[in-house]
Amino acid sequence: MLEKVDMKRKADWQDYDARMAHLEIRMGELQRECKKQGIPIAILFEGFSAAGKGTMIGKMIAPLDPRGFKVYTMEKETEDDKMHPYLWRFATKMPAKGRIHIFDHSWYQGYPQTLQTEEIRQFEKQFTDDGVVLIKFFLAITCKEQKKRLSTLEKSKDTKWRVTEKDWKKNKEYDTNLEQYDTMLIQTDTSNAPWTVVEAMDKKYAICKIMTTVVKRLEIALEAKKAGVKATDAVPDLLEEDLRNGVLQGVDLSLTMEPQEYKKKRKDLQKRLEVLHNKMYLQRVPVVLAFEGWDAGGKGGAIKRITQCMDPRGYEVVPVASPNEVEKSHHYLWRFWEKFPKDGHMTIFDRTWYGRVLVERVEGFATEQEWKRAYQEINAMEAHLVKSGAIVLKFWMHIDPEEQEKRFKQRMETPEKQWKITDEDWRNREKWDEYEKAIDEMMLRTSTQEAPWHIIEANSKLYARIRVLEIVVEALEKRLT
Amino acid sequence: MLEKVDMKRKADWQDYDARMAHLEIRMGELQRECKKQGIPIAILFEGFSAAGKGTMIGKMIAPLDPRGFKVYTMEKETEDDKMHPYLWRFATKMPAKGRIHIFDHSWYQGYPQTLQTEEIRQFEKQFTDDGVVLIKFFLAITCKEQKKRLSTLEKSKDTKWRVTEKDWKKNKEYDTNLEQYDTMLIQTDTSNAPWTVVEAMDKKYAICKIMTTVVKRLEIALEAKKAGVKATDAVPDLLEEDLRNGVLQGVDLSLTMEPQEYKKKRKDLQKRLEVLHNKMYLQRVPVVLAFEGWDAGGKGGAIKRITQCMDPRGYEVVPVASPNEVEKSHHYLWRFWEKFPKDGHMTIFDRTWYGRVLVERVEGFATEQEWKRAYQEINAMEAHLVKSGAIVLKFWMHIDPEEQEKRFKQRMETPEKQWKITDEDWRNREKWDEYEKAIDEMMLRTSTQEAPWHIIEANSKLYARIRVLEIVVEALEKRLT
Repeated sequence: MLEKVDMKRKADWQDYDARMAHLEIRMGELQRECKKQGIPIAILFEGFSAAGKGTMIGKMIAPLDPRGFKVYTMEKETEDDKMHPYLWRFATKMPAKGRIHIFDHSWYQGYPQTLQTEEIRQFEKQFTDDGVVLIKFFLAITCKEQKKRLSTLEKSKDTKWRVTEKDWKKNKEYDTNLEQYDTMLIQTDTSNAPWTVVEAMDKKYAICKIMTTVVKRLEIALEAKKAGVKATDAVPDLLEEDLRNGVLQGVDLSLTMEPQEYKKKRKDLQKRLEVLHNKMYLQRVPVVLAFEGWDAGGKGGAIKRITQCMDPRGYEVVPVASPNEVEKSHHYLWRFWEKFPKDGHMTIFDRTWYGRVLVERVEGFATEQEWKRAYQEINAMEAHLVKSGAIVLKFWMHIDPEEQEKRFKQRMETPEKQWKITDEDWRNREKWDEYEKAIDEMMLRTSTQEAPWHIIEANSKLYARIRVLEIVVEALEKRLT
Repeated sequence: MLEKVDMKRKADWQDYDARMAHLEIRMGELQRECKKQGIPIAILFEGFSAAGKGTMIGKMIAPLDPRGFKVYTMEKETEDDKMHPYLWRFATKMPAKGRIHIFDHSWYQGYPQTLQTEEIRQFEKQFTDDGVVLIKFFLAITCKEQKKRLSTLEKSKDTKWRVTEKDWKKNKEYDTNLEQYDTMLIQTDTSNAPWTVVEAMDKKYAICKIMTTVVKRLEIALEAKKAGVKATDAVPDLLEEDLRNGVLQGVDLSLTMEPQEYKKKRKDLQKRLEVLHNKMYLQRVPVVLAFEGWDAGGKGGAIKRITQCMDPRGYEVVPVASPNEVEKSHHYLWRFWEKFPKDGHMTIFDRTWYGRVLVERVEGFATEQEWKRAYQEINAMEAHLVKSGAIVLKFWMHIDPEEQEKRFKQRMETPEKQWKITDEDWRNREKWDEYEKAIDEMMLRTSTQEAPWHIIEANSKLYARIRVLEIVVEALEKRLT
């Protein structure tokens, strides 16, 4: 979840002040309305040291009526806390109806030593089932920024006390911590209590994102209450484009490769792959390659350069289209389970189970509840595959709209490629922004440590094919002896 | 869950044949209706060796159209199974809409080595969320019966092959297995996929219970489909009285104690308790005693005999009544978290969080969804307490209606006890049967290995008080050095 975020997002909008003014008014209004409707609200802040939790909380509560909220600083255990079960300190502080409780540090401090994922999920679910609006913020900054902030705090006499040995140790181990946080976030990112990762390098950006999130979640909760449905059953797309974690934004599509270099590298990688394919079979390791991407992104081309050098009895390419009648009468993941490889074999999926959170989401083939719970279902399925010993690699073939248009036109003009282009392809282009939103969210919520997403810069077909081959070869070499 | 079940239940009803005939007709009708409505049904059978899974499956499918169901025997892994991730063999066999798939042994075979509780719950939830009616049967027989059946099978040439070394080993380790099954059942007993424990000693009883359960679950699913709600949101009380796991039935209320023996034992136990109370404090062990029971069951009397001998600074008795305004504005468990003891202290609850699944269920103060999910929420909360080091003891003070009436009358006739009896008490008596049903289900779904229920035979006040003291003293002695 964290590794795909561009922490350096800035609030460079002209209408920033007007925006914030509007949000502050809404915060006050919604607080009053939620109090009237008896909706309990819990907001928790986690994040890297020096990411600015305290500052953000201060700014967030500014427009609120102080009689209606309470801030709890939970980092240090009190003597009383230590004498009670770990969750006691939080359970007793959960808000009553109509109240807002804000936690600076929360039960996530207990992860993973004291609390496991399942305990956290169960703990949160009992409250969200009961109608609590649980908003979880994770503030993210880079290692360099963290170091800079810690130094600044340390230099001033007034703030020197806030920087401890522990903080410097955390900065030293930043990369390890990032990994651990990443796992923690993904495993506790549920449809009833999703995480919002806040790019916290730019304070103006961060507070805007935080307030916008709170405003939207409260609006949803109030609507749901009016309609008599559970708020978690009604969570629509949350944030405006400029506030989403724009994973795809940061991709460098200028990367290319010269034909000569391509030829050389392809030969070498394919040779290694051939050897590895044999080892894979003898060592009984199953491999799943999942290809997603924009139409004409180059999935087929990348797949071909993989299979070209392998014994066809040892792999299968599964082209995935919309489900047929039989498949539609089963659980949506059933047809993929059917196709997973046995030990020693490789299955390459051209389009995948991610269709649930992409096309089915955008076109409305799946209900909101269905695609919103799909992230966790997919993560669980992939986790089971990896736990059973499979290598799972996921590729997103990324191109920009201009490149796509170019390729679409080329296909139409080339007789033997005309079959590849349909009206549907052109129609999908019109929904580019909606798809980008869906892809961003997919990357965020399903890029796990065991099965991360690899975004392939695919404007250059040559570059893309080599990149894919490299990732496959490296993964196999790492696992096979 | 298992330890409270009376496995020897018999089908001694006069109308048995008529009942079965009716059930068989319903099974056929419902199969057709579910096919029309496109409802997928998965039924799995687990249980002790020789409990009769095969026989029961055979009888259950007899009234069904064979074109609409399929039985999968999953005990042995096929070569193909072994070469795929563990869940593959089950995920690929989950039923399409309108089909009934029956599993003789299921993914529970993977517990706990290959599959953890959370994985099982996630696996099942994705299907029940998708509309699959998942019915889970656990067939239970006693150790003695298991031995008898294994011997019978072994003696006949035709069935000798069915009894393996492994089966005899299981019979030897019956008690350990019972404990493990108990834990497995409780942890995977969810509101979307609850377990039905089938007392399988009497085959006639067992098949009746199985068919009745299937019929009811399908009726509920069809109703929910019509109403457009999720089936799991609409599961009402399932079974007729004679088919429930009657936990309270088997309690021997004739147990009494002579005053002289009572005096002697009480003195001894209270002396030991006084010493243990000190040790508890010094060793920082928190203790939670939870008392539930019929009105006039003797909760107060039992509590008094515990606190009489202890330093009042080291314990607190919390009398629990219906929640006040502040408490009602919080999550229902909040007021209990507030009162949990710190290390070294004891809190005694006179009535408890179980009110949610007792009075709130019977009187409708909690919605069905709310009390149905409460079992797991309560189990998770108690598990957290125990994991943090607390001793948690739960007592049900059990008397029969005649004894209750006697005590009610006594109270009305005794001026200083008149305050103890109200109109409400008499009204509750009218709902005795409903309460018994709620208590039975509570025992079943919340008696865990870490925090089992102790049913106290309380018709004799003297016997009951000693029994409670014994349990408390033994638990403390076991834990403290």
